[in-house]
Amino acid sequence: MSTTPKWVQDLRPSSPQGSELLRAEREKSNLSIDNLSKFLFSADVLNRRQKILKILQAEKVFDKSHNYFDGRVDRFKTALARSKKLRQLEIQHKWTRQDLLDASDLISEPGPYGLHASMFLTTLRDQGTPEQHKLFLEPAQNYKYIGCYAQTELGHGSNVRGLETTATWNPEDRTFTLHSPHLTSSKWWIGSLGRTANYAVVMAQLVIGGKPYGPHPFVCQVRDLNTHQPLDGIYVGDIGPKFGYNTMDNGFLLFNKVKIPHVNLLARFSGVDPDTSTYIRPASASLIYGTLTWVRSTIVLQSGGVLARGVTIALRYTAVRRQFQDRDTHAPAHGENQVLNYTMVQYRLLPLLAATFALHFTGKAMMNLYEISQKNLRQNMGKLADKKHGVGPEEAHPGTDLLSDLHATSCGLKALASSIAAEGLEVARRACGGHGYSSFAGISSWYADYLPTATWEGDNYMLTQQVARYLLKSARAVLSGKSNNNDTSKILRRFLDKQDTGAAHDILSVDSDIVAAFAWRTAYLTFEALKHRDVEKKSWNSLLVDFWRLSTAHSQYLVVKNFYEVLQSTSIEYELDQNTLIVLHAVFRLFALHTLEREASEFFSSGAVTIRQIQLTRAKAVIQLLEHIRPHAIKLVDSWQFPDWQLDSSLGRYDGNVYEDMFHRASELNPLNCLIVDPYPENDTIVKKIDKTAFKSKL
Amino acid sequence: MSTTPKWVQDLRPSSPQGSELLRAEREKSNLSIDNLSKFLFSADVLNRRQKILKILQAEKVFDKSHNYFDGRVDRFKTALARSKKLRQLEIQHKWTRQDLLDASDLISEPGPYGLHASMFLTTLRDQGTPEQHKLFLEPAQNYKYIGCYAQTELGHGSNVRGLETTATWNPEDRTFTLHSPHLTSSKWWIGSLGRTANYAVVMAQLVIGGKPYGPHPFVCQVRDLNTHQPLDGIYVGDIGPKFGYNTMDNGFLLFNKVKIPHVNLLARFSGVDPDTSTYIRPASASLIYGTLTWVRSTIVLQSGGVLARGVTIALRYTAVRRQFQDRDTHAPAHGENQVLNYTMVQYRLLPLLAATFALHFTGKAMMNLYEISQKNLRQNMGKLADKKHGVGPEEAHPGTDLLSDLHATSCGLKALASSIAAEGLEVARRACGGHGYSSFAGISSWYADYLPTATWEGDNYMLTQQVARYLLKSARAVLSGKSNNNDTSKILRRFLDKQDTGAAHDILSVDSDIVAAFAWRTAYLTFEALKHRDVEKKSWNSLLVDFWRLSTAHSQYLVVKNFYEVLQSTSIEYELDQNTLIVLHAVFRLFALHTLEREASEFFSSGAVTIRQIQLTRAKAVIQLLEHIRPHAIKLVDSWQFPDWQLDSSLGRYDGNVYEDMFHRASELNPLNCLIVDPYPENDTIVKKIDKTAFKSKL
Repeated sequence: MSTTPKWVQDLRPSSPQGSELLRAEREKSNLSIDNLSKFLFSADVLNRRQKILKILQAEKVFDKSHNYFDGRVDRFKTALARSKKLRQLEIQHKWTRQDLLDASDLISEPGPYGLHASMFLTTLRDQGTPEQHKLFLEPAQNYKYIGCYAQTELGHGSNVRGLETTATWNPEDRTFTLHSPHLTSSKWWIGSLGRTANYAVVMAQLVIGGKPYGPHPFVCQVRDLNTHQPLDGIYVGDIGPKFGYNTMDNGFLLFNKVKIPHVNLLARFSGVDPDTSTYIRPASASLIYGTLTWVRSTIVLQSGGVLARGVTIALRYTAVRRQFQDRDTHAPAHGENQVLNYTMVQYRLLPLLAATFALHFTGKAMMNLYEISQKNLRQNMGKLADKKHGVGPEEAHPGTDLLSDLHATSCGLKALASSIAAEGLEVARRACGGHGYSSFAGISSWYADYLPTATWEGDNYMLTQQVARYLLKSARAVLSGKSNNNDTSKILRRFLDKQDTGAAHDILSVDSDIVAAFAWRTAYLTFEALKHRDVEKKSWNSLLVDFWRLSTAHSQYLVVKNFYEVLQSTSIEYELDQNTLIVLHAVFRLFALHTLEREASEFFSSGAVTIRQIQLTRAKAVIQLLEHIRPHAIKLVDSWQFPDWQLDSSLGRYDGNVYEDMFHRASELNPLNCLIVDPYPENDTIVKKIDKTAFKSKL
Repeated sequence: MSTTPKWVQDLRPSSPQGSELLRAEREKSNLSIDNLSKFLFSADVLNRRQKILKILQAEKVFDKSHNYFDGRVDRFKTALARSKKLRQLEIQHKWTRQDLLDASDLISEPGPYGLHASMFLTTLRDQGTPEQHKLFLEPAQNYKYIGCYAQTELGHGSNVRGLETTATWNPEDRTFTLHSPHLTSSKWWIGSLGRTANYAVVMAQLVIGGKPYGPHPFVCQVRDLNTHQPLDGIYVGDIGPKFGYNTMDNGFLLFNKVKIPHVNLLARFSGVDPDTSTYIRPASASLIYGTLTWVRSTIVLQSGGVLARGVTIALRYTAVRRQFQDRDTHAPAHGENQVLNYTMVQYRLLPLLAATFALHFTGKAMMNLYEISQKNLRQNMGKLADKKHGVGPEEAHPGTDLLSDLHATSCGLKALASSIAAEGLEVARRACGGHGYSSFAGISSWYADYLPTATWEGDNYMLTQQVARYLLKSARAVLSGKSNNNDTSKILRRFLDKQDTGAAHDILSVDSDIVAAFAWRTAYLTFEALKHRDVEKKSWNSLLVDFWRLSTAHSQYLVVKNFYEVLQSTSIEYELDQNTLIVLHAVFRLFALHTLEREASEFFSSGAVTIRQIQLTRAKAVIQLLEHIRPHAIKLVDSWQFPDWQLDSSLGRYDGNVYEDMFHRASELNPLNCLIVDPYPENDTIVKKIDKTAFKSKL
C-alpha cells in the first residue's frame, strides 16, 4: 500500500539502535519492575487493565492513527463514535464504573458522554428524591436522556453565589421559570452540552415571591428527544475551540423564560412547598462538602499518573537520543553520549520521576482518609443516636473533624499536585528538545487536555485561601489550648514548644528529620500569617500571596510525609525486594531534598535548616541522588506500566524505535503530504494537485 | 445573515460593562501613553505600522475570523495564500525588509515563505560567490527558486558536527554526491520544505578522497520547477502536526546518491579546488559568529513584545472580570471586585508587565552593542591595515573583545528572555481563569507558536554552558591580572576587592545598589564555579546545573542593569514626563526586587543581601510596588500599542467588550454548531443533519 521508495524503506537509524540502548538500560538495573508495579497498583488492577486494553484494541473505532492529524470537527465526531462504542462495550462486558474509567484512561481523550456519566448521573442520584429518580435518573441511566451539569456562566465561575440565571417560582401553575437576564448569564464551558446533551441539570438562583434563595439544581430538557433540535426559548451550542479538550463539546445555554414543572427542582435536601410557596431549608451541607473532597482527592490520585506519562516518554527518549561527546572524555571512539547522561537533563527529569511516586502515594493516602472519614461520619451518626445513652460529646466529633481537615488538605493538595503535574509535563516535553514539539511526541496534546485541571474544581490559587483559613483556625485553637490531636495541631504545637530552643534537623542523614523540617516551615509560616492577620490586622487581600506560600508549604509537607510513611509501613518489606526498596528510598530523598532546595529561602528564614545544609543539599546530596537513581530511571518508569497504545508516542515507545516511528507517521500518515502546491507568489492557485496515491492518509 | 434569535441579540452583559471599566482604568492614571509609546518605539515606527495595518486589513485573505477553527490542512493553505499576497504587496508598495517583518508581526502566524525570505536568501548572499549570486540568489530573490535551510536532522540538532548527510567530491566529473546513509540522516524540522520549497541549502559533511572536512552548505534543487514533484533520488515531505507552528510546512528530506555540480557548494569562505581536489580552508569564522549573535539578539529584542501580548490580554481581562466581593468589605452594595484588585493576581501579572519593559530595553541595548561591535570590527580591520604605520597591538582588539563578550551575553540573554516570555505567557493565560483556556482568549496559539524559541538557535539549557565558559575565562583573566576593562571584568574585580569586607547593598533605598547586588551574586557564583572546576577538578558534566544557575544569574544581572541604565540616561527626562517616569522607576524596582526575592537563596548565600532584607522585600517592598503600579496597569499595556486586529483576542479587546466578542465567535462563527448529532449510543449514526442555515461558518 505504501508508496515509500524501496531505498527509503531500507534505511535504519545510525547505530546503536534505540532498541539496543533501552535493552541495555533495563539490563543494568537490578530493580524489580514486577514487584514495584504490583506495589503501586496491585496485580488485580494490572490484569484488569490488560483485559480491557485487548477489548479496545480489537475495535476499529479506537484506532488512534489519525488523532494527531484530524481537525476539531472530525475529532469530535470520532470521539462521539467512540463514546457510543464504549457504552455498547460497557453493556456487552458488564463493565463496572471502574472498568469504564480504566477504558477511558487507555483511550486518553475526553468524550462527549463525559459529563453525562459523571456529574449528571451523580447529581440526579445524590440530590434527587425517589420520585425524581424514577422520572429522570432511570431514563438517564439508560441513555434515553443524555445530560450535563450546567453551573458555570460566561460571567461567573469560582463565585457560584454570583450566578445570574434565575428560576422563579410561579405559585399559580406550580412551575419555575428559567431565565437568563444578561448575556453574562449564559451557561458556559458546560461539558457535553454543546452538541450532545438533550438534558441538563441547571444551577439557577431560586426566587420565591421576589426573594432570592441562592443557587439550586433544576432538571431541564434542552433538546427534542427525536429531532435533537433546541426546544423553544432555549439557545444552545458549542463554545468553540480550546487549547485542548477539543473532543469534548463544551457548550453555552441561554433561557428565554422557559417554564419547567415543580418536580424539576432536585428536592432531596431543599425545595419549595408548592402548597404554601415557602422554601424548605437544607438540613446539612456536609454531604456536598464530601463530594468536593472526593473529586479533589481523585485529582491528587491521578496527578502522579498524569505526570508519569510525560516522564516515561521523556526518559525513554533521552536514553535513546545521543548528542555530543562527554566534554572530559576526548576519545572519539567513545561515540556520542546519551542525553540522559547529562546532569542538566537528569536534574530536570529525575525529580519529576520522584514526584510521580510521591503524588501517587499521597493520592492513595488521601483516598484512604476519605474512606475512613465517610465511615467515621456514618458511625458518628450512630453515636449521635447513642448520645441519649450516655456517650460524651468529645467523642462525638472525630468524623467531622477529620472531614474538615480532609477538606482543607484536599484543597491544598489538589492545587499543588495538579500544578506539579501540568508544569512537569511541559518540562518533560522541553527535555525532549526539538522532537518534543512534534505532536508525535505524545506530550503536547496530553498536556493541553490536562491543563484545565489547574482551573476547575477550584482554581489552584483560589483554593490556597481555604488551606490558609484552616491553618489559621488550627493555630488559634492551639494557642488557646483548645486544639484537637490531629497532625496539624501536633506540628503547630511542636513548633511552639521548640521555638525557643530552635530546630536541629539533620536533613542529610535522617529521613524523619526531612519530614520534620517541612513541618517546621509550615508551622513557622502559619504563625507568621496569624500574626499578620490577628495582631497586625492586615487585610485578607494583602495576605493572599502569603496564604498561597503557606498552602504550598503545607501541601509539600503532606506529600513528603505521605511518601515517608509508605516507606515506613511494615508491609513494604514483604512486598518489595531489598534492591527496589533502596532505590525507592533514594527516590523519596530526591523528591524531598530537591523540593527543599527549590524553596530554600523559606527553610532558612524559618530556621528549619542552616544555609550550610542547603549548600550541601544543592552541591552534594541532590547530585549524588541523581547519580544513584540514573541507572534505574528506565525501569522506574516501566513500573508505571503504560502500554504503547495508551501513550501513543513515537518518543516514548517501550522498544526504543523512536526514529522509525516518527518517520512512519510523518511520511505515511500525514494528510498534508497529499497536497501538491503551486509555490509561486504570482500564481493565485494554492493547490496544484491532490496526490491520492502517495500517502495512505485521508484528506 | 445571522439566525441568532432576537431575544439573544438583545442581551447585554450585566453591569458595569467592560467598556465602562476600562474607561475608568484609563481615566484614573496620569501616565502618558503617547510619550511612553514613542519612547519605546519612536513615532516613525508607530506610524509605519499603522500604515501597514490598513493595507493588510483591506485584503480579504488576511481576514482572521476562521483561524481558530480551521484544521491544519486549511490553515496551511490559507497561510500560503497569505504569503503570496504579502509578496505581491511587498512589490506593489515597495516594502523594505522591515516593513515586511512588521506586516508578519501584525498577521502573527508563521508562513510557508518564512525560511525562504530569511535563512535561504541570507545564506546565499553571505556565503555565495558572485558567480553563485548570479546563479542562485537572483532567481531566489525573484521567487523563481523558493528555498529553505536544511541543517537539522532526525538524529542531530544541537550537535551540528554530528550531522550524517554526506557530500562526497567526485573528481572525475567535478560533482558532489549528496547522500543520506541512515534514517537518522533525514533532514527534519526544515521550515518551508515540507510542501513549498523547490530549493534547499543543505548542510552536509564534505568528504574529499575519503576524508571528512565537516559540515558545509550545498545548494540543491529538490522539486521540479514546473510539476513541483520531487526530483529523482529525493524523498521529501512535511513532518506532520506540531504543538504550534502548524501554518508552516516543516519538512523532511532524504537523498539517494544525488549528484550536484561543483558550483553548488557555497564557496565564499571555503571550498574544493576542482583541479587538485584539495580543500580550501576558511579564513575566519567570525562572520558566522556575528550572524548567530544577531539572531539571538533579535530573540531578546522580540521577547518583550511577545510577552506583552499575553500580559495585555490578561490585564485588560482581569480589569473587566469581576468575581467575589472583597472579604473585608461587607457592604453588599459594593458589588463584585475586579479580579485585578486581588493581590494574588497582581503578584502574578504585574512582575510580568515589568518584565516586558525590562526585556524590551535589554533587547534594544543588545542591538546597539551589536551595531557597535560590527562598526568596531570594520574599524579594527582598518587599524590592522594601519599597523605598519605604528599603531600598537593593544588597541587592535577592542572589536573582537566586544564580540566575544556579546556572543556570551547573547547566549545567556536568549535563554533567559525566551524562557521568561514563554513561561510568562502561560502564567498570563492561567490568570484569565477558565476563559484563558478558550482559543478566543488569543494566548494559547500565540504561546504554542512561540515555544520553539526556547529550543531553536541554541537550546536554552545548552546555551548556558557558553555563558559559563566565558565567565570562567574572564575570572581566570581577572585572577591572573590579564583581564580587559569590560563590565564583566569590573564586576569580578569589585567582588574580589570587597570580599573580605563584605557587601552592604541598600537594595530597598538605592536603585544602583540593586544592580550591584545582582552583580555581586554573579561574581560570587562565577568564583564558586571556578573553584569547582579548576581547584576541585570536578567534571564539566557534574557542573552543568551550577553553570545553568550561573548563566541565569548573570543574565538577570544584565537585564536589571540595562533597565537601570535606560532610566539613568540623560535623554529620558526630555522624552518622558515626570508622572510617567515615576511609574517606570517603580516598574524597574518591581522587576528587580521580584526577581531577587524569587532567587533569594543565592542572594543570601553569596552575602549580597541579608535575610532581613529579603523578608522586607517580600513582605513590604514588592507588595507596595504592586499597589503603586496597579492603577497604571492598563495604560502601561496600552503603551505597547497592539491593535485588536493583531491580538485577535476576545479577552484582550481594547474596548473591554469581552463577553460580547466571546459569544459572537462561539455562536456565529463556530463550524461545530452546524452538526446536528444523533446522541444515542445504540445508533451508529453520528451526524443526523448538517444545519447550513444556523451559522455563518463553513464546515
